[in-house]
Amino acid sequence: MKASQFFISTLKEAPADAEIVSHQLMMRAGLIKKLGAGIYNYMPMGLRVIRKVEAIVREEMNRAGAIEMSMPVIQPAELWQETGRFEAMGPELLRIKDRHGRDFVVQPTSEEVVTDVMRQDIRSYKQLPKNLYQIQTKFRDERRPRFGLMRGREFIMKDAYSFDRDQTAAKVSYQNMAQAYRRIFDRFGLTYRAVAADSGAIGGDLSEEFQVIAATGEDAIVYCPTSDYAANMEKAEALAPAGPRQEASQTLAKTPTPGKATCADVAELLGIPLETTVKSLVLATDLSNEAGEVVKTQVWLLLLRGDHNMNEIKVGKVPGLDASFRFASLAEIDDHFGCEPGYLGPLNLKKPVKLLVDREVAVMADWVCGANEADFHITGVNWSRDLPEPDLIADIRNVVAGDPSPDGNGVLAIERGIEVGHVFYLGTKYSQAMNATFLGENGKPQFLEMGCYGIGITRLPAAAIEQNHDERGIIWPDAIAPFTVVICPITPERFPDVKAASDKLYSELLGAGVDVILDDRGERPGAMFADWELIGVPHRVTIGDRGLKEGHIEYQHRRDTAASKVDAATAFDFLKGKLAL
Amino acid sequence: MKASQFFISTLKEAPADAEIVSHQLMMRAGLIKKLGAGIYNYMPMGLRVIRKVEAIVREEMNRAGAIEMSMPVIQPAELWQETGRFEAMGPELLRIKDRHGRDFVVQPTSEEVVTDVMRQDIRSYKQLPKNLYQIQTKFRDERRPRFGLMRGREFIMKDAYSFDRDQTAAKVSYQNMAQAYRRIFDRFGLTYRAVAADSGAIGGDLSEEFQVIAATGEDAIVYCPTSDYAANMEKAEALAPAGPRQEASQTLAKTPTPGKATCADVAELLGIPLETTVKSLVLATDLSNEAGEVVKTQVWLLLLRGDHNMNEIKVGKVPGLDASFRFASLAEIDDHFGCEPGYLGPLNLKKPVKLLVDREVAVMADWVCGANEADFHITGVNWSRDLPEPDLIADIRNVVAGDPSPDGNGVLAIERGIEVGHVFYLGTKYSQAMNATFLGENGKPQFLEMGCYGIGITRLPAAAIEQNHDERGIIWPDAIAPFTVVICPITPERFPDVKAASDKLYSELLGAGVDVILDDRGERPGAMFADWELIGVPHRVTIGDRGLKEGHIEYQHRRDTAASKVDAATAFDFLKGKLAL
Repeated sequence: MKASQFFISTLKEAPADAEIVSHQLMMRAGLIKKLGAGIYNYMPMGLRVIRKVEAIVREEMNRAGAIEMSMPVIQPAELWQETGRFEAMGPELLRIKDRHGRDFVVQPTSEEVVTDVMRQDIRSYKQLPKNLYQIQTKFRDERRPRFGLMRGREFIMKDAYSFDRDQTAAKVSYQNMAQAYRRIFDRFGLTYRAVAADSGAIGGDLSEEFQVIAATGEDAIVYCPTSDYAANMEKAEALAPAGPRQEASQTLAKTPTPGKATCADVAELLGIPLETTVKSLVLATDLSNEAGEVVKTQVWLLLLRGDHNMNEIKVGKVPGLDASFRFASLAEIDDHFGCEPGYLGPLNLKKPVKLLVDREVAVMADWVCGANEADFHITGVNWSRDLPEPDLIADIRNVVAGDPSPDGNGVLAIERGIEVGHVFYLGTKYSQAMNATFLGENGKPQFLEMGCYGIGITRLPAAAIEQNHDERGIIWPDAIAPFTVVICPITPERFPDVKAASDKLYSELLGAGVDVILDDRGERPGAMFADWELIGVPHRVTIGDRGLKEGHIEYQHRRDTAASKVDAATAFDFLKGKLAL
Repeated sequence: MKASQFFISTLKEAPADAEIVSHQLMMRAGLIKKLGAGIYNYMPMGLRVIRKVEAIVREEMNRAGAIEMSMPVIQPAELWQETGRFEAMGPELLRIKDRHGRDFVVQPTSEEVVTDVMRQDIRSYKQLPKNLYQIQTKFRDERRPRFGLMRGREFIMKDAYSFDRDQTAAKVSYQNMAQAYRRIFDRFGLTYRAVAADSGAIGGDLSEEFQVIAATGEDAIVYCPTSDYAANMEKAEALAPAGPRQEASQTLAKTPTPGKATCADVAELLGIPLETTVKSLVLATDLSNEAGEVVKTQVWLLLLRGDHNMNEIKVGKVPGLDASFRFASLAEIDDHFGCEPGYLGPLNLKKPVKLLVDREVAVMADWVCGANEADFHITGVNWSRDLPEPDLIADIRNVVAGDPSPDGNGVLAIERGIEVGHVFYLGTKYSQAMNATFLGENGKPQFLEMGCYGIGITRLPAAAIEQNHDERGIIWPDAIAPFTVVICPITPERFPDVKAASDKLYSELLGAGVDVILDDRGERPGAMFADWELIGVPHRVTIGDRGLKEGHIEYQHRRDTAASKVDAATAFDFLKGKLAL
């Protein structure tokens, strides 16, 4: 490609609404252009990146035996009503009425449609397994779209759906996809982690997120530097403390803590470690009758160490809380504790509550908690002696760096990541809702066992940039760069040798199948270099008259701080080496 | 690809709502699956065809210097309001409100968005010309979607838009695209015609449709078998008759024609050629004041030869009718003619009308027309003698087969076609509406000169099938076949030599880059052949034990009536020849 024949449009300044670096750089490098809130044109430079991402995904999906199809963007509401998602999905699901007033949705994902396809076509277990995928435009009507392609409303996703005869086969399909995802993410040339994720009601370990590591990432990733363990924060288990509960050594004492409503403030006031304090959180669960009226409410007191945070996913798995829970109202708190939040604790309750205690708190001795009286805490609290043993003990907190790894092979570290892929075992959730059956080997109808597998095609470039950039711009991995090599001739209009050498190298690289762009726009060298550093082409060759006279050209990788001289006569061979051709 | 690893789903019967053969065959061959009215899943077999169409289009667009980008499917209404199309497009434009109540449309085309992109990025004539294209999902909310992908609601279109500094340059861009389209349609391997089309208000000859020839086509195509002339029916000119008007030889006579309200009936009753009769059509034009109230209505009488039909496009270009016209009401007709339609004519009018006469009628003598009296016609009518010369004479009729070709090189023939592409010079229609300017060489802002160029990516396969099918199924041209070659081994599970020979040929073809499918499903030969004939794979190789023992395999092109024996040892070379490798 010659730059004069392409569409290059760089900006000095990013627009004010571009809050994160990938959004800023994608706008400045002319990869995308905003059309509306969360809606972007994929400009020619950006589309090249997207197409490369798509091609890698497509190749590896095909290699893994998945079959490409394409489902409509505009889908009739009826299928979404079968699974209840038409109502359940809320305002993120963009709904349309056609000219006849019929309801449609703009697809945010396609479980319903693909299940509908399969329930029509799959009659026998002999036709299984099957894995269908598409790379297609999606829409999610985010309340507050932002961060460019990172959280846009219209986006491109690769979504795959596996169909199997039983759970065993479904797990093979799942692992096959998880393997394919590792190949895909390896090929992107990004640093990433596959992390265990919560699989919700289905249980088991068949849910993994693929996270591109970046300091700016939305998600906290938990991993063990000395083992393979990696999980997202929702999933990562905080092991039970190794030792037994310590002996009580302090006496119970009520201490004035005026205006100190947080554990940190109390610890500071009393001059004690935060790790000796305990925070109280009050939840409630409602029991309803058939008419939907609440007939009984149970109030729960959760105790966590002062430096720990509650993990809602884990709490949601505790028996009694697993149906649904909410934070208690101030009235309910007053009713049970006779006190406002900030000074709550498990002692001196007005009414009994159910006591759920984190594993860590269950082994503590001589701890500090609220006195259920404003401006007072109690110190030297000890289990059994001062209050009964907890009703329930469970892992209900987020892990912190330094916690032991659940696999027993070291301690946990935490880093940030951007989720760009997810593999998930669905079970029969959709096939049951939509009555998608096949005849099993025993001749009886059985529900299809499903899995779903997504990759955010347009999110991936944004994640790649968050991970790979500097103050000059983007730094693309070769595999997804809009161009792999840029040739910058210096004033070729004045120096025929420069033009000839540039054209020759350009032809050689094109002939070798290299994605090369020759900058023939006639820009000044400074402007030319700034453009390509902003755009992030990984390999740059500069050809000038003085260098040629001395027998060299200049090569600079986008990560290099300076250019290096390369023998002009062997420049092509040199580049082949750099590109591993 | 091995058939067992693919998704093959053929049907014995087409669904009842599939009215045309391409729709029936696409459903039966499992290329598409209906999701809703005019909305289809592109199944794996169909998507392969679509991807091949896309690839050819993309290659040739790139070769022609067009640059690929991708515009959103969901577009904010504001841009569409700038050009007035948000209101003007009517119910075919699918409108959406997002969660905040803002208006959006699902793109049916993207002139507004691409013009918005360019008005932001193009500052100087030095950046021109540019041609941007996308291959993207579109939606048109047809009142009555039907015919499968031929007239669906959701479809894929390649839409390109050229931007130039002036009309001269715009015409170069237009011709460049017209040439690229010829290359594209040549590569598809279909019989097609590029036909001149009406370019509306812009005028000139810069509008061509690309029509795939098929007896079932919606459009009438006019062409000259002995020259290059081709146009659609709207555009094709009916030349003025060569000779002068004939002399009058009959006297004027009123003739009873009870119940004979059409020219054909009158001609039959009177035993005269239909070509001597004249039909009367009554139109009206309204002159409105600034408040939009009609202040004056002009009634027009149009005269056409009894065997000719009115061409509304041509009528709409006649001075006085070019703003807008309508058919006259019965009241208006009675007011001017004192008679109901069926017996109207230009003689004995109650009130004067404007008389617009087709060129053919203007040279007729001794003709027959209505008497403006129910159940009566007048014979022997002659210009000047019986009524004044026409107010206007123009070409206002559709051509018929046998008319002289407008290029003077023969006579016209008519065939049917399916429009799958269109190249169109737009001028400054959109750039003026959206104030899309650039600084010209003279330093002054000028409007961008535009052209637009569409190809119906998902319509093309349907058109290909209408043109190429037989009672057994589809017959794909090699270029867009889902698979180029199918290998059908006969009971390979019983004959290891069959399996070995099939696997070997499969590997050889794969290695040569041939899109081959090996049918390893274990189907009976009859069912296997029926499937592949229905699906329409152009080249079939059958490998059986008996043939191998005799040293041959069988080859059958989809158009062949029977298989032919091919030396097994040189089968690969034979196929290379067939595939022009």
